[in-house]
Amino acid sequence: MPDALVDRINQTPGWTKEMGIVILTASPEEVTCVWEVGERHHQPYGIVHGGVHSGVIETLASIGAALVALPRAQRVVGLENHTSFIRAVRSGTLRAAARPVTRGRTSQMWEGWIRNDKGELVAQGHVRLLCIDEGTTLG
Amino acid sequence: MPDALVDRINQTPGWTKEMGIVILTASPEEVTCVWEVGERHHQPYGIVHGGVHSGVIETLASIGAALVALPRAQRVVGLENHTSFIRAVRSGTLRAAARPVTRGRTSQMWEGWIRNDKGELVAQGHVRLLCIDEGTTLG
Amino acid sequence: MPDALVDRINQTPGWTKEMGIVILTASPEEVTCVWEVGERHHQPYGIVHGGVHSGVIETLASIGAALVALPRAQRVVGLENHTSFIRAVRSGTLRAAARPVTRGRTSQMWEGWIRNDKGELVAQGHVRLLCIDEGTTLG
Amino acid sequence: MPDALVDRINQTPGWTKEMGIVILTASPEEVTCVWEVGERHHQPYGIVHGGVHSGVIETLASIGAALVALPRAQRVVGLENHTSFIRAVRSGTLRAAARPVTRGRTSQMWEGWIRNDKGELVAQGHVRLLCIDEGTTLG
Repeated sequence: MPDALVDRINQTPGWTKEMGIVILTASPEEVTCVWEVGERHHQPYGIVHGGVHSGVIETLASIGAALVALPRAQRVVGLENHTSFIRAVRSGTLRAAARPVTRGRTSQMWEGWIRNDKGELVAQGHVRLLCIDEGTTLG
Repeated sequence: MPDALVDRINQTPGWTKEMGIVILTASPEEVTCVWEVGERHHQPYGIVHGGVHSGVIETLASIGAALVALPRAQRVVGLENHTSFIRAVRSGTLRAAARPVTRGRTSQMWEGWIRNDKGELVAQGHVRLLCIDEGTTLG
Repeated sequence: MPDALVDRINQTPGWTKEMGIVILTASPEEVTCVWEVGERHHQPYGIVHGGVHSGVIETLASIGAALVALPRAQRVVGLENHTSFIRAVRSGTLRAAARPVTRGRTSQMWEGWIRNDKGELVAQGHVRLLCIDEGTTLG
Repeated sequence: MPDALVDRINQTPGWTKEMGIVILTASPEEVTCVWEVGERHHQPYGIVHGGVHSGVIETLASIGAALVALPRAQRVVGLENHTSFIRAVRSGTLRAAARPVTRGRTSQMWEGWIRNDKGELVAQGHVRLLCIDEGTTLG
């Protein structure tokens, strides 16, 4: 994906920008990002809130699935996000990547991994998305 | 739960406060909250980001499970968050509630629902949490 | 749903019959069943195998969703099954029920509960299904 | 894992044997199996029942996690099974493998994949398990 598009995604206001999550690369095969853990990501005990992990995986899966859908004149809608928490994190740099498990015409599934500075797995998740033909109204 | 404790939760810095999510009530039987949808909750197409829904359910489940764990000299650790997206939301007030499905000594599961102004279900999720006896180190 | 249809479901060969699971009622609002725990349901330690619980919830959700889809000239395809295990069971009669969480035109979600003789929750699960218009080929 | 142990698992009566699922290899790093699709695996439309896929992944994850737990004087209890269905199967030979995502002292997560004759992914799932020290009574 051309850097111009990644730049545009990173400048779009919303949850991902609010959280300081920076998309590094985006293609129909893989989407990656990085962010610096800060107070805005914490739950009350000072570790990264599970919802931030779920949200990062949702962000990557949605971008990837949209890149698959676009040339098919489709858009995607997230149905289910299932994220497993493996290791607590208090601070440092986190990196994440998502890759497709299936890219069917009616549904896609993307899998994502979040890793800490040492490359250890922090969280892993799956997002199932519905593919909708443009012009179709959702019931 | 005394209002003083709810107040303290609402003043604690972190993801939940950052997102403008306000806890209304919190007990070992139910935790509820409310928030006003804004740009900080959006994905690029202007609808509430799935990660926000996952995160709200994680917040409520974690508070509830902690209230169950506390008098048992336990703390809780989130293991899995599974959130299903039912209805897209662009703006307005969202309300959520979580209630326990099981409150065992080794694990708890809490279920949460997010509803829009009209009371329609927007998202539903489940969080499985591990209960750890205080003094135990996690492997 | 007329008893004749429930009878026909119960006589159809396949996994559900193999497991001795008997459908009691089936409508677009609720599907229920009962079964007697035996050796065929056990994992090696003599408790009911988690896959049996997942499968029972899949059975009920699929029947219910199909009953919703039929009058719309749609069929349904299961996308995701997420089942949580609450209480180990060795023997006795188990009963289960599933009810819809959403019955949209593009996807449905059904929720199911399995309970023991005492009415205690044994397992709870969710199935997300895709609705396909008849005549459409899956990509 | 010595063949003698795999043989013993395959001879143990219960759901896995009932379904004709044959364990091929079992170690703390990977567990694999194979089975021939037949009527006993079908849902009413003649495709493999989702519960069979969930159950196969549960079987493999449980064996693997138990092999990890044993030398630690622990046993494991399945908490959550989340299985995603990718491709419908009517007949043929299916093969599955599961590998650990995390093997912590308090919980494990195993991931499994089911593939058809052509090596195409049919289903993928995750099982989260609790590790219990022997001698501990579950609450």
